[in-house]
Amino acid sequence: MIHPIVQRLESLGITLPEPASVAGNYVPFVVAGSLLSVSGQLPLKEGGLILQGCLGQSLSEQDGYEAARLCGLHVLGQVKSALHAHWSRLLRCVQLSVFVNADPDFVNHPAVANGASDLMVEILGPEIGRHSRAAIGCASLPKGACVEVGATFWIET
Amino acid sequence: MIHPIVQRLESLGITLPEPASVAGNYVPFVVAGSLLSVSGQLPLKEGGLILQGCLGQSLSEQDGYEAARLCGLHVLGQVKSALHAHWSRLLRCVQLSVFVNADPDFVNHPAVANGASDLMVEILGPEIGRHSRAAIGCASLPKGACVEVGATFWIET
Amino acid sequence: MIHPIVQRLESLGITLPEPASVAGNYVPFVVAGSLLSVSGQLPLKEGGLILQGCLGQSLSEQDGYEAARLCGLHVLGQVKSALHAHWSRLLRCVQLSVFVNADPDFVNHPAVANGASDLMVEILGPEIGRHSRAAIGCASLPKGACVEVGATFWIET
Repeated sequence: MIHPIVQRLESLGITLPEPASVAGNYVPFVVAGSLLSVSGQLPLKEGGLILQGCLGQSLSEQDGYEAARLCGLHVLGQVKSALHAHWSRLLRCVQLSVFVNADPDFVNHPAVANGASDLMVEILGPEIGRHSRAAIGCASLPKGACVEVGATFWIET
Repeated sequence: MIHPIVQRLESLGITLPEPASVAGNYVPFVVAGSLLSVSGQLPLKEGGLILQGCLGQSLSEQDGYEAARLCGLHVLGQVKSALHAHWSRLLRCVQLSVFVNADPDFVNHPAVANGASDLMVEILGPEIGRHSRAAIGCASLPKGACVEVGATFWIET
Repeated sequence: MIHPIVQRLESLGITLPEPASVAGNYVPFVVAGSLLSVSGQLPLKEGGLILQGCLGQSLSEQDGYEAARLCGLHVLGQVKSALHAHWSRLLRCVQLSVFVNADPDFVNHPAVANGASDLMVEILGPEIGRHSRAAIGCASLPKGACVEVGATFWIET
């Protein structure tokens, strides 16, 4: 029987990205009992950052939304890797931290963060996908990324 | 028997705000086993933001303190909702993340964050209310808020 | 028998700092079941901040690395205090949040954050020390610090 998450990925034509490597002495995720902590993910496409820059300056809200969605895809790629594709072990997306590279005058961080939030619900379904969230504006982000998304999941041990 | 938290709320004349709705495909809190994760709360009063702006510019530290306290009230409103007002299930405020909309020259984030921290101890008492904390300065926050507070609690399952 | 963590501290000639006091109504760490949450630590030396300022302006990446390492030492000082020096109860460094006081043009937050990450692996060993991580650029930090590091650990109850 195909898991509903796999079905949704297939029907949407989405292939989750291979887990990106990390730039330091850390790991892309940690499993600690029933918690899965995923490192901050950047909007990478084919190994390179897309949409570098600052919300409220060079980038539109739609750009930010797309970048946050792409970060979310990398989050889910890490979850798949952590669970060895056993999606049935995934109980809940607990929390997303959405860091937006944003101008002091920018005020629509929620519209940007929705790119990651919508993806979680689209792929995981509302019962597993709906999460708590904090979205904030940052002075800068690694490599000039416009968005970074960290996440915590609840899993079966 | 009235729970001490209810007594303290009553003696202080505080009515916790009704949980604010969220601007996206997420939820104001998630219960995952014994963890309760509360989404970033803004300083809302009667549905509107108060004290919009930036610490170190238009707002004083006292403004920031009041805003952080108001964020804390919304955090506690979400906790009440998550526990269906069964305060006896609340074991501990584990962590507050206090995001301060702050000028590059601002240095007194702890004085602002104390607005939320003092409230936790005032309402929950020191044993449940004293928490770990991180306070940082942000380039901007949703809707021009001057403070945002996210939280994690430990609860009885 | 000497615990490997104690051995590594001794062979490196590192004495963990005494837990720093906190500037408010909160505590430097909270133990909640099998989770240990450590408050954001600043780069303090003999009670005073070192390397105040902003990455991309007055400070070099090497300065930031050293400051992040010093924050990490304070994180480990809090862990030692939380565990009453029973290092065998420490199962895993789950997550580091590395907040970098950074200019809008700064892009190398990972190089700064590595100061804390490298320390965790150096002292705790790769199995316990390798963690998930989020590194972001902040508009400002408490007391003008250039780095702040918060952390979550998994411990035996």
